Amino acid sequence: MEYFSKQISEMIDEFSRLPGIGAKSAQRLAFHILHMPKEDVKRLSQTIYDARENVRFCKECFTLTDSETCPICANPKRNHRQIMVVEDSRDLAAYEKTQKYDGVYHVLHGAISPMQGIGPADIRLKELMTRLQADVDEVIIATNSSLEGETTAMYIAKLLKPTGIRTTRIASGVPVGGDLEYIDEVTLLRALEGRTEL
Amino acid sequence: MEYFSKQISEMIDEFSRLPGIGAKSAQRLAFHILHMPKEDVKRLSQTIYDARENVRFCKECFTLTDSETCPICANPKRNHRQIMVVEDSRDLAAYEKTQKYDGVYHVLHGAISPMQGIGPADIRLKELMTRLQADVDEVIIATNSSLEGETTAMYIAKLLKPTGIRTTRIASGVPVGGDLEYIDEVTLLRALEGRTEL
Repeated sequence: MEYFSKQISEMIDEFSRLPGIGAKSAQRLAFHILHMPKEDVKRLSQTIYDARENVRFCKECFTLTDSETCPICANPKRNHRQIMVVEDSRDLAAYEKTQKYDGVYHVLHGAISPMQGIGPADIRLKELMTRLQADVDEVIIATNSSLEGETTAMYIAKLLKPTGIRTTRIASGVPVGGDLEYIDEVTLLRALEGRTEL
Repeated sequence: MEYFSKQISEMIDEFSRLPGIGAKSAQRLAFHILHMPKEDVKRLSQTIYDARENVRFCKECFTLTDSETCPICANPKRNHRQIMVVEDSRDLAAYEKTQKYDGVYHVLHGAISPMQGIGPADIRLKELMTRLQADVDEVIIATNSSLEGETTAMYIAKLLKPTGIRTTRIASGVPVGGDLEYIDEVTLLRALEGRTEL
């Protein structure tokens, strides 16, 4: 991109490397930023730098956070005896948005995937077992409904069996508002198997 | 977004303010960055900051650049007697991508728009007239084919009349590969008016 000066080209290149940002969007973003007030750009770049520099894993649940303990684990009003196991911090955010879950989380940072060479030792399972030495009433397994997520769920269930702690799995079925006609067969069968009494 | 810690939420907020980035993409970008190597993030934030801090207008053509003169105006191989007038730096880039134009540019930074209160004094027209005091063979008006772009083109053409400098306008018509069936009437009429001998 020799038609822009060096620093502008570099900014466009940096943006193009980010996920979901193509060449056109990168150029659009760069020129938007070049027209922004200097102090806003300073804040933007500083925020990106600071967040990455200070991010770490919560010492309790291992979600990404900028303090030793994340806001959820630090909240005494949450039920620390109910732990929802999720694959990553964004899944945690998805459940937080429901505003109905008041337990805490455990972030695995991945799922078991023999195909990708990710084994049980590569995700935060050992840390989960350590947490279960405290008083825990229930472990809710909320890994994704993918092959990897299901494998991980089954692995965790087996692992927890000897502890006697109640272990549950979030329901799999037809999404709310979903039209049966457009739902895949596997989901339809899953919904049938998971049917409940009315 | 209290479900993320402060610095992570701030980064998501900053991204959401950029054009074309919604809440979901902002979150995706933020987490991508949190997983990037620290040195890459440092370079990303520094590049954004530096580009904005050092950006200025080329003293010849007024495109955005980080040096006194942009790479195109500084290139002695370009034909400095042929000036293409465009609305902004991205339009310049669009013509540069064709790799066929070897003249120079003049960036107006806008177009005349009575609706938006943008008059001839608000765009870089005075600077264009100053440039025309040097030897210039042709001014190619390549403002957009919008109402504002056309108004600006006509205004410039009138302004240049007394100078006797050859003034041309890029052709308006059916885009290459365009299917007549799907082209709007105004474009079809424009293409008819602009027909050339075969």
